[in-house]
Amino acid sequence: LCYLTGGLSIPDPRQREALIQLEASMQTGGQMVLTDAEQRLDALLFKMKREEMAMADFPPAMHFFKARSLIRTSPIFQLLQKMPKGGALHVHDFAMASVEWLVKNATYRPHCYMCVTDNQSIRFIFSSRWPKALPHCSPWTLLETLRAKMVNTTELDNSIMGNLTLFTDQDPETVYPSQDFIWGRFEQCFLALWGLVTYAPVFRDYYYQGLTEFYTDNVMYLELRVLLPEIYELDGSTHDTAWTLKTYRDVTRQFTAEHPDFYGTRFIFTIHRGVNSSVMTGAVEQAMKLQKDFPDIIAGFDMVGREDSGRPLWYFRDALSLPVERGVALPFFFHAGETDLEGTEVDQNMLDALLLNTSRIGHGFALVRHPVAKGLSRKRGVAMEVCPISNQVMKLVKDLRNHPAAALLAENHPLVISSDDPGMFGASGLSYDFYEAFVGFGGIKSNIGTIKQLAINSIRYSSFTPKQQEEVLALWQRKWDTFVSENAP
Amino acid sequence: LCYLTGGLSIPDPRQREALIQLEASMQTGGQMVLTDAEQRLDALLFKMKREEMAMADFPPAMHFFKARSLIRTSPIFQLLQKMPKGGALHVHDFAMASVEWLVKNATYRPHCYMCVTDNQSIRFIFSSRWPKALPHCSPWTLLETLRAKMVNTTELDNSIMGNLTLFTDQDPETVYPSQDFIWGRFEQCFLALWGLVTYAPVFRDYYYQGLTEFYTDNVMYLELRVLLPEIYELDGSTHDTAWTLKTYRDVTRQFTAEHPDFYGTRFIFTIHRGVNSSVMTGAVEQAMKLQKDFPDIIAGFDMVGREDSGRPLWYFRDALSLPVERGVALPFFFHAGETDLEGTEVDQNMLDALLLNTSRIGHGFALVRHPVAKGLSRKRGVAMEVCPISNQVMKLVKDLRNHPAAALLAENHPLVISSDDPGMFGASGLSYDFYEAFVGFGGIKSNIGTIKQLAINSIRYSSFTPKQQEEVLALWQRKWDTFVSENAP
Ligand SMILES: [Zn+2]
Ligand SMILES: [Zn+2]
Repeated sequence: LCYLTGGLSIPDPRQREALIQLEASMQTGGQMVLTDAEQRLDALLFKMKREEMAMADFPPAMHFFKARSLIRTSPIFQLLQKMPKGGALHVHDFAMASVEWLVKNATYRPHCYMCVTDNQSIRFIFSSRWPKALPHCSPWTLLETLRAKMVNTTELDNSIMGNLTLFTDQDPETVYPSQDFIWGRFEQCFLALWGLVTYAPVFRDYYYQGLTEFYTDNVMYLELRVLLPEIYELDGSTHDTAWTLKTYRDVTRQFTAEHPDFYGTRFIFTIHRGVNSSVMTGAVEQAMKLQKDFPDIIAGFDMVGREDSGRPLWYFRDALSLPVERGVALPFFFHAGETDLEGTEVDQNMLDALLLNTSRIGHGFALVRHPVAKGLSRKRGVAMEVCPISNQVMKLVKDLRNHPAAALLAENHPLVISSDDPGMFGASGLSYDFYEAFVGFGGIKSNIGTIKQLAINSIRYSSFTPKQQEEVLALWQRKWDTFVSENAP
Repeated sequence: LCYLTGGLSIPDPRQREALIQLEASMQTGGQMVLTDAEQRLDALLFKMKREEMAMADFPPAMHFFKARSLIRTSPIFQLLQKMPKGGALHVHDFAMASVEWLVKNATYRPHCYMCVTDNQSIRFIFSSRWPKALPHCSPWTLLETLRAKMVNTTELDNSIMGNLTLFTDQDPETVYPSQDFIWGRFEQCFLALWGLVTYAPVFRDYYYQGLTEFYTDNVMYLELRVLLPEIYELDGSTHDTAWTLKTYRDVTRQFTAEHPDFYGTRFIFTIHRGVNSSVMTGAVEQAMKLQKDFPDIIAGFDMVGREDSGRPLWYFRDALSLPVERGVALPFFFHAGETDLEGTEVDQNMLDALLLNTSRIGHGFALVRHPVAKGLSRKRGVAMEVCPISNQVMKLVKDLRNHPAAALLAENHPLVISSDDPGMFGASGLSYDFYEAFVGFGGIKSNIGTIKQLAINSIRYSSFTPKQQEEVLALWQRKWDTFVSENAP
């Protein structure tokens, strides 16, 4: 850089070209050596991106709820769907699959009761007997009986669906006027689907459906953040955490047996950050036990729930120091920096996650405002799990061209792209978020090297051992080569 | 940093404190040594900021048009108004003063004619005779006659005002749905006020009014981007560029004579970027001549108009290389990076501005996505002129906590705060933009050192010689000390 910038006078076109190239080479994947076929596919992608940017309605500049139908018709998106994207490293258990499946499949099963809460949300329960009424709720209705009386159940089904997802056909700015408001709705959706997804048969099938959606979207591996709640049966009996994790393992084995090119799921045990210190201590102890009992599938520990209204990581430092004190290597994958509240206690979560030796950071939306945390994460290779659609829907950023990860991508900061809660956002798998990254904040200059590197990152920054990574990478590389040869012009 | 990050195990609270302090010291003004009184004022500001951030409606998260009335009642804003802010380095000639003054003063002068264009904008002319009709316009109306027929002229005046500014009481998201739309309206406002402000008597008084507004807002120095258009008299005769500049000089002298603590104005000659190469060559030649003829008040050269729809700087490289070729030191102050179009030709303007040896960069909104340009600007001390309200109104960013300058401020990147076109945005002077910077993207952690440094930056990065800078700085320091002693608790 130095020799290029000394003694400027009349700008030299060669110097300009060199600086532009230098900058391009600094971005994620900027130093990737491309094959001939990759270069041809890159030229096609470049042409498509220029055309897309010239359209009157540019999807990344719009709210995803309005942009989704445009994205679906985008030839870039269709290519990204086919692209082997590696792993999805930031996805939550009960928002991994589409709510349409929940409505069309789960709620059509026998013994499914629904009630309406005082604040117009809904609750479900499966029960062999008539269930006991919930406080602040209407009496239970058996959906089978209700639907039998109806000529057309579309309206009912749509209304149920609307209660299980944030996605809406109406103007999202009007429906969700503030961050507080949408987080409130987010939590209501979660409570609404709780009774469906914690019913043992649905629990299994929902997870299988989630795997199917990611697999169909050409994702070969998942790291799933899971609450591992009590799962119930029709007679009201419940299962413990070990059962739940075993069920995840069994369904994963079944799925990989049926889809040998799917590499499996590892689980990050999570707890809501709203708990107190002693509950947190218990959760960390449980995480260590789970890791001991299921070493092949437990990846580590994290907390969920809105950072802005929860306790900061530092508050739980004693509980979170337990593994080190006991000589146990429990990896952390903390959500941190999913906030606009710059400089507050919550805004220190990224630094604290790094001090607590986190393996990755969930979101890291506020990282660019924190040069020390940014420097540490780069130096230590702690990747940000960037979830663009989630950040837009939760109102951290409006125009995805302005997502702060634009700066991170321009500097090849360690990062992966993920989808957080696709079911909540009306998305599916990873491709929508890859689209927003590649076409939105990646700008014109992000290229096939960028998305290739992002896929590789998702393996390199996974919780696999180096040896496993090589294995997954080899499998991915074969898929990639096929993808390129089938789609390069 | 290194010794702090080696061998992590259980996080050490002292290490955490040290890293937080390190990060705080890296921000703009982070290493400023504060007096006791400054520390007391800082504590007060911190308390105020916490209170402001806890409010349901947090102004920097809102559109300025909705936030303005809240900001006016903010005790922080009231302090910032009193604070000596140094210079305003990015302000345009015909948007420097409030449109209310234009309506209440300029349009009430005799011989003021108005017409309505086919697309519902308005045009003005002062003329001793009945003026010739404009194409695509209604016949001229003499405002004096029109108003004389009215019982109440409030509605007419408000309607005129609405045509001269982007500010609106209605929902700005609805009124201005896109960047294209608002730039169209911006240009119409500009055409509407053109006939008013290029009338010699109004021209003088408008500039005087602008100086008054900035001076009242405790700004002591201006660098004004000026088009130096033909100025006309009542009889239709016109004045040349030299007359216009002389008039600026004379009014400035009058103003500084009346306000000895105002330090004056220097002028950046600008031309619209929509011109062709030969017109640009002529403009650069004119700029060199003006600088030779008025060396004490011409600071340099720049282009105006929307970057996205104009030609990139590189297109004009031959014209812009003329001064160096002729051995003339004509400083440049290029607008660059006022765009979301990442990776396009226009998005290279920042790098090209640096290659053309620009003294500062207007906006640099896209800088954080360009690590090479960012590195160069830091190394060479090329300051960004950050205009938060302008960027928000022109729809580059919605929530000002997310303005990319948050990252620049966190790293003490060379920058100054300015207001671009306060008259267009319903703002005045610099304080509203200082508020958005300090309370918005500065976050809780930006402190009195930050705003003090921003004021000092506005002198350090001005076009003054080092010797003049010392003089202005000494004057500013006296004002600052008074401000602190009068407001520290
Ligand atoms: Zn998450
Ligand atoms: Zn400007």
